[in-house]
Amino acid sequence: MAELSRTTGVPVPTIKYYLREGLLAPGERTHRNQAEYGPAHVRRLRLIRALADVAGLPLAGIAEILAQVDSPDPQLHHTFGVVQHSVTAPHPAVDDETRAAAEGSLRDLVLRRGWQVGDDNLAWPNAVTVLATFLALGNDDLVATLDPYAEAMELVATADIGVIAQRTDLEHQVEGVVIGTLLGDALLAALRRLAHEDASARTFTDRATTPPRIAGKARD
Amino acid sequence: MAELSRTTGVPVPTIKYYLREGLLAPGERTHRNQAEYGPAHVRRLRLIRALADVAGLPLAGIAEILAQVDSPDPQLHHTFGVVQHSVTAPHPAVDDETRAAAEGSLRDLVLRRGWQVGDDNLAWPNAVTVLATFLALGNDDLVATLDPYAEAMELVATADIGVIAQRTDLEHQVEGVVIGTLLGDALLAALRRLAHEDASARTFTDRATTPPRIAGKARD
Repeated sequence: MAELSRTTGVPVPTIKYYLREGLLAPGERTHRNQAEYGPAHVRRLRLIRALADVAGLPLAGIAEILAQVDSPDPQLHHTFGVVQHSVTAPHPAVDDETRAAAEGSLRDLVLRRGWQVGDDNLAWPNAVTVLATFLALGNDDLVATLDPYAEAMELVATADIGVIAQRTDLEHQVEGVVIGTLLGDALLAALRRLAHEDASARTFTDRATTPPRIAGKARD
Repeated sequence: MAELSRTTGVPVPTIKYYLREGLLAPGERTHRNQAEYGPAHVRRLRLIRALADVAGLPLAGIAEILAQVDSPDPQLHHTFGVVQHSVTAPHPAVDDETRAAAEGSLRDLVLRRGWQVGDDNLAWPNAVTVLATFLALGNDDLVATLDPYAEAMELVATADIGVIAQRTDLEHQVEGVVIGTLLGDALLAALRRLAHEDASARTFTDRATTPPRIAGKARD
């Protein structure tokens, strides 16, 4: 266990905790006080830490995800649903009228984009909550310009599914859905901030020596 | 205060806590035991709850953001930096070689896209951490296909900056940067999951009766 801890950088007490909680399978007992841990343990430990530290999931969510990784649903489509379950956002109080307006904007957007999405997708209430909060804070203009965001997420979802579809075994595919979706959110947030600096420098400072790329495209 | 609580749905003890912590300005004292709260208090309270509940910021991060909202930097470009400061991701242990490979991929991407980003942008280490975690977990294919994600974030950043640039007063602009960036992450994550269901249904199930939109576009 000391070696497992050294290899992964996860402290021994934490490893013991994961063993107790059933997130990590016990090692193969070799002596009374010793157990052997293999590459599968290293891999699983890294996955747990990635879900906890990088994706910020609570332990219950991680357990739910790992269950899916261990016995993958052959209907890969369902795995996306499980990944959504593991992330629940709190829904602050917003009055009914504002919530209805937010929901209307979102339904219009989904119709406009031609997305086929069931009513049971847990992202609906999450998206409605953010939009309702925008409205409650008087940021109606943020709600009025949703199409570029939807278009961007179409690109992302197509790339996500494309990578998964090219993987050949189910286990690897399920892991891709889990890791790609959950850690991917953190990656997208980081890339968005890098892109912000670029776009903001071009718009709000005198640093821009080249014409803004997007405006330049439109003029071509 | 009871009325302020009723209007915003925030419990009185929580309001008192925010007052003690200096996140909320005291009301105007009208009697020995009574103070008057106006629309500015309602607005501020809603902003605090949105940053806490929807964006998931810790109190220290919220305080930093509110300071920026209260005395906006006339260089709007700097506000994006402050918003980045308020979000710090933990960086799990990854060996140096993997981290260097991740950083190389990211730098190549930024060069390829022509983004002008300073070394001090806090999103660098966050993005590197996610990419290094992908590699450490054996998901090299996720790192090999970053361009669609970068392209998507260019769309998002251009839309973000476009909305902000159309606002006429600085205070409203700064609030837009704060709300749009932080709550926007949650919105994008939700839209991504809606788009996933659509793209996944077309790829992994027999439900798709219409040809995949993206593939269809390429064939036109």
